[in-house]
Amino acid sequence: MSSRDGFSWTQEQGLKPGVPCIGAIQPPTNLNNASPDVFDPLETPLYLASPPFSHCHGFPLTQSSTGLKVLLLEGRDRIGGRSWSSNMGGYPFEMGGTWVYWGQPNVWREILRYQMQDELEISYDFTRGVNQYFLAGPDGTQQFSHEEEDAIMDSGLRKLVNVDGDLGRKVIPYPHSAAFTPETLQYDKISVADRINEIKDSLTPNERIGVEAFVLLCSGGTLETTSLFEFLHWWALCEYSYDGCIRYLVKYKFRGGQSSFAIRFFREALASGNLTYSFNSPIASVKSTKDGVTVTTRGGQSYRAKKLISAMPLNVLNAVTFDPPLLRGKKTAADIGHVNQCIKVHAEIREKDLRSYTGISYPHNNLYYALGDGTTPAGNTHIVAFGGTHQHFHPEDNIDETKKALQGLVPMDIQRIVFHNWSRDEFAKGAWFFSAPGLLSSHLIDMRAQQGNIYFASSDWALGWRSFIDGAIEEGTRAAMSVRRDLVESPAKPKLA
Amino acid sequence: MSSRDGFSWTQEQGLKPGVPCIGAIQPPTNLNNASPDVFDPLETPLYLASPPFSHCHGFPLTQSSTGLKVLLLEGRDRIGGRSWSSNMGGYPFEMGGTWVYWGQPNVWREILRYQMQDELEISYDFTRGVNQYFLAGPDGTQQFSHEEEDAIMDSGLRKLVNVDGDLGRKVIPYPHSAAFTPETLQYDKISVADRINEIKDSLTPNERIGVEAFVLLCSGGTLETTSLFEFLHWWALCEYSYDGCIRYLVKYKFRGGQSSFAIRFFREALASGNLTYSFNSPIASVKSTKDGVTVTTRGGQSYRAKKLISAMPLNVLNAVTFDPPLLRGKKTAADIGHVNQCIKVHAEIREKDLRSYTGISYPHNNLYYALGDGTTPAGNTHIVAFGGTHQHFHPEDNIDETKKALQGLVPMDIQRIVFHNWSRDEFAKGAWFFSAPGLLSSHLIDMRAQQGNIYFASSDWALGWRSFIDGAIEEGTRAAMSVRRDLVESPAKPKLA
Repeated sequence: MSSRDGFSWTQEQGLKPGVPCIGAIQPPTNLNNASPDVFDPLETPLYLASPPFSHCHGFPLTQSSTGLKVLLLEGRDRIGGRSWSSNMGGYPFEMGGTWVYWGQPNVWREILRYQMQDELEISYDFTRGVNQYFLAGPDGTQQFSHEEEDAIMDSGLRKLVNVDGDLGRKVIPYPHSAAFTPETLQYDKISVADRINEIKDSLTPNERIGVEAFVLLCSGGTLETTSLFEFLHWWALCEYSYDGCIRYLVKYKFRGGQSSFAIRFFREALASGNLTYSFNSPIASVKSTKDGVTVTTRGGQSYRAKKLISAMPLNVLNAVTFDPPLLRGKKTAADIGHVNQCIKVHAEIREKDLRSYTGISYPHNNLYYALGDGTTPAGNTHIVAFGGTHQHFHPEDNIDETKKALQGLVPMDIQRIVFHNWSRDEFAKGAWFFSAPGLLSSHLIDMRAQQGNIYFASSDWALGWRSFIDGAIEEGTRAAMSVRRDLVESPAKPKLA
Repeated sequence: MSSRDGFSWTQEQGLKPGVPCIGAIQPPTNLNNASPDVFDPLETPLYLASPPFSHCHGFPLTQSSTGLKVLLLEGRDRIGGRSWSSNMGGYPFEMGGTWVYWGQPNVWREILRYQMQDELEISYDFTRGVNQYFLAGPDGTQQFSHEEEDAIMDSGLRKLVNVDGDLGRKVIPYPHSAAFTPETLQYDKISVADRINEIKDSLTPNERIGVEAFVLLCSGGTLETTSLFEFLHWWALCEYSYDGCIRYLVKYKFRGGQSSFAIRFFREALASGNLTYSFNSPIASVKSTKDGVTVTTRGGQSYRAKKLISAMPLNVLNAVTFDPPLLRGKKTAADIGHVNQCIKVHAEIREKDLRSYTGISYPHNNLYYALGDGTTPAGNTHIVAFGGTHQHFHPEDNIDETKKALQGLVPMDIQRIVFHNWSRDEFAKGAWFFSAPGLLSSHLIDMRAQQGNIYFASSDWALGWRSFIDGAIEEGTRAAMSVRRDLVESPAKPKLA
């Protein structure tokens, strides 16, 4: 199966849109099989609307196991939203999401539930080859051992986060807490650029390159548009250490690719007998009344239900017409949006020795962070590389420029390039959530708020692992709890039409 | 509300069995309200049998939210099994369980789901008072700062666990994995006593006291009956560090006590409308046929259902008659049992300065490990102390001996003592699971095995946080998935009687 999403390039085939994906669903709908009365609003209490039902839907689907009938409307042709992989010849290239860890409670609970805990592998492999860290600045490339890399990163990041004399522990002692303190909020008023300006004299040149590139790897924005608070929040979630950042953020991935996980949610929901679904069904408008919700697709098909769970990411909330309009704070947050325009590019290359490569090429190069991520069935090395707003580009527009950005990390003989352009993805308009200063302190509550019969569930406004697959499941669970509370446990008295 | 479980002692009242508990359920059953047809086996697919439905039932109760009708049979008068608190004047004394952490995936997922993430507090408080670590050996007491304590413990434990030159990371790289390797298994053949014998020349006297007392705090057994593998497994779960052990094992607890958490599971299940329950209903026998299960209480009442989830701990499996008998491997495991006979004693004392006390009194003292755990409403300090098989005693048998064991940690003016005797608890026969060498490598698979229509769910044989609340939820979830698979998704064809 293939998805419309993503691009691949090889010398033989050139640039091609669409890639193989085990998360692409066939048939794309089971609506034809459903008896008409399934869509009696009294019988169909819930819609999962997802024109841009992204990162990572599939997760509110656990709803269907609570015994409620669910209709899933999805704009894409595949499950998984911002978390998916393209499996080529059985080998996965991760287009978004990728890494998971057993300290991430929501995602790990599902991994255990699906008994997938033995299906993980480690991205990097430092057992052979160059086994080096390439730090490319404008004036040339230095090479270090990975131990030296860790020492540079650890030292630099500690200086960045040590705003409280305790490496951020005092500022964010409970990284899953819903409660912002005044002290916490002050760090959402400034950017990482502001913070680096404060400490720049204490950073060595290599620490500064390493820290800046690492922060941009996290945010996909610029240093100026990266909230210091949100970076501290990531740091707190990662146990206040660089070692923790590696373990939680870029180490363990699914041997079968992210879509091998997302598909489990879909199959489980389908097996419950409570799921009707329709892919390729982007939503145009949502009308909410006291008694329910009417959702209309771009194709003009309307569906009524008692409740709607919207899993649309923040950056595309404005692409749907809401009647009544979105609450003011939510609308403002959607207008502001998040800043992550990450560019994630996979390269399959001939150099076996680069399997143990990691590197930074910053600030001059379009792709600033990369690592050896696997060995392909052909025996080639697979490198994953990251860029973002810092020096933004669209990889499909000029494949030679994309190759140049890859070569700017380390010389390589490129056989294949695979990527998804999240910035031009109409159902995402960006990668995982990352905020500029001010957004979270002003609008996190707004983003999380229910509006009539509409529940908003997205990793973009999770409390704990916000931006991560874990946060998507946290939010899907929150929505499921709320819907069950309102529909089953204490339903409002029936109203006369 | 009060439970029969637990004891309290004060000078005025003397020793009294039974303590207040918010997890005690009134009325003790809703059977009278249920219409008779609820107990038609075709309508009641599931029983949760729990003569010793312990540590931590309540957790398989999420089953009821899947839409299946559930009957909960519980031997005790309270919910929570081996995880419960006595709340006295609003102040909780933790009788079992206690600590949770956001790196424990299953328990944290439930904490987020119930929005209890802001209801945690830290056990210790090093901001005032003596702020010292008292290391009492047979020859007297030394005092150290908590930084010195950390250094002793960190150094000693690293020597203990460094069996592979990488602090246990090579032996157990995936602490939630179901797969034992031959290398892993070799460490289940030896005890911590064996390991200490190997490294004893490298340990300082204080490191040895600290390490041995810490291991016994974890296992509740003796060094000889503590599997080195199982201790390494705890260590791996705690991120391979002493700092991690503190964070995961003894730091964060519920401000309202553990029973404030357990009660949420019960209430949620009750609100689903699918739960019938009966406390004070210990099970005598379980008869399983192809078509279902018949459970008979000690009072002679029988119930039939399609499936049974047994949440009985390992050490009491033999207290119920199974027909057909337990599978051979499971029976053997139950005969062997686990080794944890932890004695956990709370003391409310006058010394405000001991709020920041931590201490070890080993190997001569009946209680070998303790720490300041809170400040009571009366302004007294609350100390929690631990003993076990090492020098076992029953705290209620001679309260003067119990006081002496407390005084042997640090001099204190005792106002109140609170404890639960897990060793004499007929529904537990021990505290949390800990294994002697050989049990896990020979019988973990047996303990986890389904037998006909009976599913065995206990933290005692969880894969990840085995022995912890987290493991109980892991197991409840596994049972729920299995039951749903067998009853809903691919039910066997109906058989003629």
